[in-house]
Amino acid sequence: MTVRAGILGATGAVGQRLIQLLDPHPDFEIVALTASDASAGSQYRDVAKWRIDTPIPDSVAEITVTETAPDAVSDDVDIIFSSLPSSIGEVVEPQFCEQGYIVSSNSSNARTDDDVPLTIPEVNGDHIDVIEIQRENRGWDGALVKNPNCSTITMVPPLAALDEEFGVDRITVSTLQAVSGAGYDGVSSMEIIDNAIPHIGGEESKMETESKKLLGSFDGAAIEWHDARVDASCNRIPTLDGHLENVWVDTAEPVTVSAAVEALESYPSSSLPSSPEQLIHVFEQPSRPQPRLDRNRENGMAISVGGVQETEGGLQFNCLAHNTMRGAAGASVLNGELLLEEGYL
Amino acid sequence: MTVRAGILGATGAVGQRLIQLLDPHPDFEIVALTASDASAGSQYRDVAKWRIDTPIPDSVAEITVTETAPDAVSDDVDIIFSSLPSSIGEVVEPQFCEQGYIVSSNSSNARTDDDVPLTIPEVNGDHIDVIEIQRENRGWDGALVKNPNCSTITMVPPLAALDEEFGVDRITVSTLQAVSGAGYDGVSSMEIIDNAIPHIGGEESKMETESKKLLGSFDGAAIEWHDARVDASCNRIPTLDGHLENVWVDTAEPVTVSAAVEALESYPSSSLPSSPEQLIHVFEQPSRPQPRLDRNRENGMAISVGGVQETEGGLQFNCLAHNTMRGAAGASVLNGELLLEEGYL
Amino acid sequence: MTVRAGILGATGAVGQRLIQLLDPHPDFEIVALTASDASAGSQYRDVAKWRIDTPIPDSVAEITVTETAPDAVSDDVDIIFSSLPSSIGEVVEPQFCEQGYIVSSNSSNARTDDDVPLTIPEVNGDHIDVIEIQRENRGWDGALVKNPNCSTITMVPPLAALDEEFGVDRITVSTLQAVSGAGYDGVSSMEIIDNAIPHIGGEESKMETESKKLLGSFDGAAIEWHDARVDASCNRIPTLDGHLENVWVDTAEPVTVSAAVEALESYPSSSLPSSPEQLIHVFEQPSRPQPRLDRNRENGMAISVGGVQETEGGLQFNCLAHNTMRGAAGASVLNGELLLEEGYL
Amino acid sequence: MTVRAGILGATGAVGQRLIQLLDPHPDFEIVALTASDASAGSQYRDVAKWRIDTPIPDSVAEITVTETAPDAVSDDVDIIFSSLPSSIGEVVEPQFCEQGYIVSSNSSNARTDDDVPLTIPEVNGDHIDVIEIQRENRGWDGALVKNPNCSTITMVPPLAALDEEFGVDRITVSTLQAVSGAGYDGVSSMEIIDNAIPHIGGEESKMETESKKLLGSFDGAAIEWHDARVDASCNRIPTLDGHLENVWVDTAEPVTVSAAVEALESYPSSSLPSSPEQLIHVFEQPSRPQPRLDRNRENGMAISVGGVQETEGGLQFNCLAHNTMRGAAGASVLNGELLLEEGYL
Repeated sequence: MTVRAGILGATGAVGQRLIQLLDPHPDFEIVALTASDASAGSQYRDVAKWRIDTPIPDSVAEITVTETAPDAVSDDVDIIFSSLPSSIGEVVEPQFCEQGYIVSSNSSNARTDDDVPLTIPEVNGDHIDVIEIQRENRGWDGALVKNPNCSTITMVPPLAALDEEFGVDRITVSTLQAVSGAGYDGVSSMEIIDNAIPHIGGEESKMETESKKLLGSFDGAAIEWHDARVDASCNRIPTLDGHLENVWVDTAEPVTVSAAVEALESYPSSSLPSSPEQLIHVFEQPSRPQPRLDRNRENGMAISVGGVQETEGGLQFNCLAHNTMRGAAGASVLNGELLLEEGYL
Repeated sequence: MTVRAGILGATGAVGQRLIQLLDPHPDFEIVALTASDASAGSQYRDVAKWRIDTPIPDSVAEITVTETAPDAVSDDVDIIFSSLPSSIGEVVEPQFCEQGYIVSSNSSNARTDDDVPLTIPEVNGDHIDVIEIQRENRGWDGALVKNPNCSTITMVPPLAALDEEFGVDRITVSTLQAVSGAGYDGVSSMEIIDNAIPHIGGEESKMETESKKLLGSFDGAAIEWHDARVDASCNRIPTLDGHLENVWVDTAEPVTVSAAVEALESYPSSSLPSSPEQLIHVFEQPSRPQPRLDRNRENGMAISVGGVQETEGGLQFNCLAHNTMRGAAGASVLNGELLLEEGYL
Repeated sequence: MTVRAGILGATGAVGQRLIQLLDPHPDFEIVALTASDASAGSQYRDVAKWRIDTPIPDSVAEITVTETAPDAVSDDVDIIFSSLPSSIGEVVEPQFCEQGYIVSSNSSNARTDDDVPLTIPEVNGDHIDVIEIQRENRGWDGALVKNPNCSTITMVPPLAALDEEFGVDRITVSTLQAVSGAGYDGVSSMEIIDNAIPHIGGEESKMETESKKLLGSFDGAAIEWHDARVDASCNRIPTLDGHLENVWVDTAEPVTVSAAVEALESYPSSSLPSSPEQLIHVFEQPSRPQPRLDRNRENGMAISVGGVQETEGGLQFNCLAHNTMRGAAGASVLNGELLLEEGYL
Repeated sequence: MTVRAGILGATGAVGQRLIQLLDPHPDFEIVALTASDASAGSQYRDVAKWRIDTPIPDSVAEITVTETAPDAVSDDVDIIFSSLPSSIGEVVEPQFCEQGYIVSSNSSNARTDDDVPLTIPEVNGDHIDVIEIQRENRGWDGALVKNPNCSTITMVPPLAALDEEFGVDRITVSTLQAVSGAGYDGVSSMEIIDNAIPHIGGEESKMETESKKLLGSFDGAAIEWHDARVDASCNRIPTLDGHLENVWVDTAEPVTVSAAVEALESYPSSSLPSSPEQLIHVFEQPSRPQPRLDRNRENGMAISVGGVQETEGGLQFNCLAHNTMRGAAGASVLNGELLLEEGYL
């Protein structure tokens, strides 16, 4: 049985990646696309500035784009994938949920709300049942599920693996983020060629809060956030895709490089279709991972780690993930797969 | 009176910058240039692949390049500026010092030797008198003075300013370094376009050791290294010039943003000709400093700081300096000026 | 005596360059700045996203920006420099001219109008007197003078030099244009990193028509356009500033490399303040000119030529100019200087 | 039956691409790898700086690399793929041919020799039988076959298509070439970031001569070169892969855009395994093809064309191909497939 899927914000950078992932997906079928009012009524191929290096799937190219509103979308949609600017998402997503739609959203609004599951299925898939509390609180038939920010997703799986074995007390992270994280027109070429920008608005606080929620525990009644200290500094650099991060952790228990590598490599992936076979790949060469060489590992869904070194009382390491695959579109699709597996669809 | 200067490794990236700085210098005059044996005997213009965007100074273009050996260089040279690969520097520099030459070196060898001054004149110019101990130990008429690594120089002035006021206990730094730091052919375009490399061989340990020596104190008998903990992670990114660094410090005393900015801005520069008027410039805008926009501030000799924020028990900030000016050639010239002011020339 | 200058579109990329050039100018003084209605009423420093690597001049930073309309600008302005989108320029510039303002414009509208002088002062400064015809035709007290497109300016001086000596029959040109030619937000980083775009809307026809008008002759009554055939192909590449062009010319008379170089190097510059000492610099090395190394020659106002080779019946060569200096802001300022010298101010 | 293949120069950029293409190939099996003497005796994985974003195939990783000499390679090799520096190729390739090896070479030596077939199978596959003349001339049991330079390959298929229909008299071409064309260390990052280089040593003459040989005809006795005039100008730009070219042709017969597009799109591909389904893809959008978006079309083996416009007496268009796939490794593999089909293996 195929799950019928709609995409909110289908013409954007993440929207295009959602199409790329959902079109060949074994479980989902794209049946509805929404965009800005100006695009509504046109065929997708005529309004999307398609910039992926494979063509628009034929079956998608001819879908008529609608406005981004529940009334404009057919009732016959089982799941909504949302990648809207957060200012729009915070208005529109609750409208869909009220109308009974299940929404898997990449938009940054509501991520830290108590009754909204923020999930990376391989890490805290059990948080999905926060939906029960959400429905009680909000009286929705639908549900709203979030995936975290792309820079948060990159570091949380290795942190979760280390936390489980050694306990993580303090996290310091510096990011080298690709321009695609800001959307197709987010960073102009004059800003970034031969340059770097040591600030991405709101990104540092997202990393600091979201990671604590993700590493937290859910006892069926509430999510208890992890109490680690997190300090983040976020930088934009002239790469197209792939966020690279330098991470330092102070651990509760002593840790060696070999024990850390063992914990990272043995951290389980999930059986969901979009999960990689191995969630965390660890490089021995200190010069890896690198964005261009490693971002596409396991269809862009694996996390790569390297440069693992002992420090006084902890570790430092580097990690990398594809920011629009593992960090955005793929994250939303994975959450959709989790919703399906857990019986919410 | 003009000081007669020779340059070891004059055809390299830093060698070219040394020529650019020394040619118009009020106190120094370039009289000798050395390079590899293959270049010896030719005019400079014929062997240098000049890649600076101003022409080779006429007076320098016609100098006949010699081998990099004391016998090949005229006795009539007052100071030697050295920018050799460290494997060559460690052999050749002592030979020059034995023959009575004063050497201001950018090469990484010997930087952490007890009896070698490692100086940033505005920060620890008083360490220069370690020369007395060096001469006693080694029986040299000459002397060997070092400037630190380019990535170390970038962060040490702001750290020194903060240490003086608030005490610095723990330093964590992530660097975004320009390709020129590896020399003209050091990073191939295929390695770095649309990419970043989370490793620069030996750089992390240089930052960790050199910064503690620079922040240390000299009591006339020995340098006592600073006891701060330093953790560094070094990255190469696709920028031409200018190293950007994210720094976190845990301080001994409580610190506020305004007190930190006050300490940074009021930290004194020196009266040496190449010192900037203001050593540390602080930006209010969180998106600055940026390599391309800020690396040339005060002729490439100023340090720019931005993004100053309070953390639990300390601060985080970003800093930037021009790696081949403030971080290499300009650093060596400044040390030459210090040697002149202190009567060693 | 100082000429009082206003700038239309002062917050844009070329507007900022105009400020950079006019602020220290010996003859002009900036007294008025206009921008979009949203910016009107604010101080320049508060509405300009200043992206030049030297600070906003103090005297300019505090000017109150007005709307882009004759009524909003003080009468006490002697010359208007205009760098507006052409769709706005074609409406607004005539309004200023009707009100008696002399307008030196970089906008693309009206460049090929019969009664509008399109001038590169060193090449066809005598065309300036087309103003007499313009005033007669249009009944204006003011006047409208245009400089050509940045890619046209780059090749026309060498073509004029060759045409004068050997006659130019057919011109084929391929451009490698910098992103700044499209304005600060004109080319997104996702479009151009690791890429090139073989099309710039309207640019090819501008090069084909403008160059024939520029190379034409003015007999006091009308401009007779040059009858050379011009074929252009325009490409955007990932460089910040500096347009590089490959040019082939079929000549009427036989030509040798040495005769061509002689003609290029001896082609006269002008005595206007912003003209370079030597208009055309010729490189012997085939690998030059290069955008990053050569764009700033003579304050960004010189044309660099290299790779001069004989072909069957003609020549091929490469040329380069700084597109926002020689190709835009500097071109408008030069035309302002010409207007002053010729008594129109 | 599998053809046993050796690769000369297996650690280089093209050598790595050869491995990437041959490992999964239906007809070829990699059994021998050679490299510089320094690498001989080691396993491939230990001496190759592998920089492709898929891992080294397991079966190849453990092959012991030998010296690049006939005696060092097993006799049990049916075909040699060669990608050596031409100075080495011109010495070593004849040695292999004398020893009876069939060599499909990407190296630039000998490409224009009268008795060496220079082939693009879809265009002039019939030239392969020049081997008969070669064997007679040189007394070889083996044979030497060449593919053209990467920039030549890009433009020749569309030129052949147009020549067949309309006759091509004069060709003018400007190239925008990727850095991978110079090998992994061929272009340093300091040379090319924010820059372009209007010269690639020897490339222009290769384009001018090779294209005339490729477009020529072979009557069984000798290749008659095409008599078109070819003028080329070659530029290096900051792209990783994919050569983009602006081409102008004067045609013997009148040509319209629609007739040209028809000729291009209907130009036949071949049935060889590595040939694309459609050899030449034509874009309607003038902004395509672009290197990053279009270089991988049909596994990197298709030629993309766009911007087709009529000129006085001819056409202008842009074309693009992946320079290390269609332009180098893929070209050699295709020639290997042709040798197999034609019974030379």
